[in-house]
Amino acid sequence: MKKNWGKKIWGFPGGFIPAESSGKEPEMLSKDEISILNTSQKDADILITIYYADRDPVSGYKITVKAERVRQFRINDLIDPHAIPLGVQYGAVLQSSAPVIVQWSKQITSEGKLGLMGAMAYPVDVDL
Amino acid sequence: MKKNWGKKIWGFPGGFIPAESSGKEPEMLSKDEISILNTSQKDADILITIYYADRDPVSGYKITVKAERVRQFRINDLIDPHAIPLGVQYGAVLQSSAPVIVQWSKQITSEGKLGLMGAMAYPVDVDL
Amino acid sequence: MKKNWGKKIWGFPGGFIPAESSGKEPEMLSKDEISILNTSQKDADILITIYYADRDPVSGYKITVKAERVRQFRINDLIDPHAIPLGVQYGAVLQSSAPVIVQWSKQITSEGKLGLMGAMAYPVDVDL
Amino acid sequence: MKKNWGKKIWGFPGGFIPAESSGKEPEMLSKDEISILNTSQKDADILITIYYADRDPVSGYKITVKAERVRQFRINDLIDPHAIPLGVQYGAVLQSSAPVIVQWSKQITSEGKLGLMGAMAYPVDVDL
Repeated sequence: MKKNWGKKIWGFPGGFIPAESSGKEPEMLSKDEISILNTSQKDADILITIYYADRDPVSGYKITVKAERVRQFRINDLIDPHAIPLGVQYGAVLQSSAPVIVQWSKQITSEGKLGLMGAMAYPVDVDL
Repeated sequence: MKKNWGKKIWGFPGGFIPAESSGKEPEMLSKDEISILNTSQKDADILITIYYADRDPVSGYKITVKAERVRQFRINDLIDPHAIPLGVQYGAVLQSSAPVIVQWSKQITSEGKLGLMGAMAYPVDVDL
Repeated sequence: MKKNWGKKIWGFPGGFIPAESSGKEPEMLSKDEISILNTSQKDADILITIYYADRDPVSGYKITVKAERVRQFRINDLIDPHAIPLGVQYGAVLQSSAPVIVQWSKQITSEGKLGLMGAMAYPVDVDL
Repeated sequence: MKKNWGKKIWGFPGGFIPAESSGKEPEMLSKDEISILNTSQKDADILITIYYADRDPVSGYKITVKAERVRQFRINDLIDPHAIPLGVQYGAVLQSSAPVIVQWSKQITSEGKLGLMGAMAYPVDVDL
């Protein structure tokens, strides 16, 4: 991380990746997804920390969103330092070196159905 | 409650738990769910008050979200001082002894379908 | 209206009530719904104005949310001064005499399906 | 653009228009939609910029939301300077000459299903 954009974080408390999917992949995969928009002129280095219900948080997930670019990725794509298990409650926190706009979305396709939800994250000032 | 985090509350006006579910349980249960992320170094004591359309609010529901942990629970899991009835309009308000991030989600699985919605709560300064 | 709570309004731009529903009523009706939570000790008098794409706004819809109560109602229940037509784009703005928390939700049940979405409204300072 | 409303923007990071739809059109089309409510007494000139994952942003999309009117449109309706491709990740940023309230919604109807999500955008102060 070059530096933090102040002390702001974007947090998502409701993480849960269903183990079951149905329908054509990759569009119809059950997934938790994070979308980050970087409208600034400099790259945004993002640090992600994953919180669990009954074990210590895991930090160190790093991705970059280049200047004037959008990036959308599945939570399952975060595998370093280690993959987030399916079927487990988790929360995610993002920190960024540049101002970004962050959205979370969830798609459930279990049992041949389709459920979709999305939420804009708002940055909050929280001590980490 | 040790103390309030200022006078902030997180409120959810749109509570309603359908009596009917379909599909495999527990994943496909119709439910209202609250997710709380505590990124701080101290436990967060949460006090929940349930508001109804035509009767007095019921307070005294207490849960703890440990330091650096996430907690997700169904509204139906709140049974002390008494369970929230199915099929009744309600609203919920959370107060916390430590800064937390709060999300609400709703899943309806009636009639073999799947509807999903979620919303990030933002803390507001309201007198209680 | 007794008085405005400052100059704050809650606005919903994405109103549209599908004419078609399927499934058991009233739970499975296609609907736009507003949920209001009044945690204060005094009644909240709510004034609603409906905006359209191609005609003048219609104001004068009034409802009361009693002290320490929640109220959830379908947009279609607003019939005075006149009902909101189905299948027409609209937006809604709420003003309140007391601080409240407001949520919007939409349920589409056309063609035997179920789509659900919800959003917390945040109060904004806009001149009316 | 007459002028910017301060330096505020409304941003949507999670854009993606599925190529596949099912069900009766136009109601059941897969779509990303933006809804804008202009409660002010003057027209709002909106400038939209589309950001991509791997190419430069495209700006210059202009629409007007008349005074005291709502406007809802599909992202696909933006064709000048050029149409937004289906099946591609994108983000959108809105700037406005007058204060407005902005919502994003997404409808997926692939494979005979229905998924719906919506999010209120909040204005942020970001350098462009």
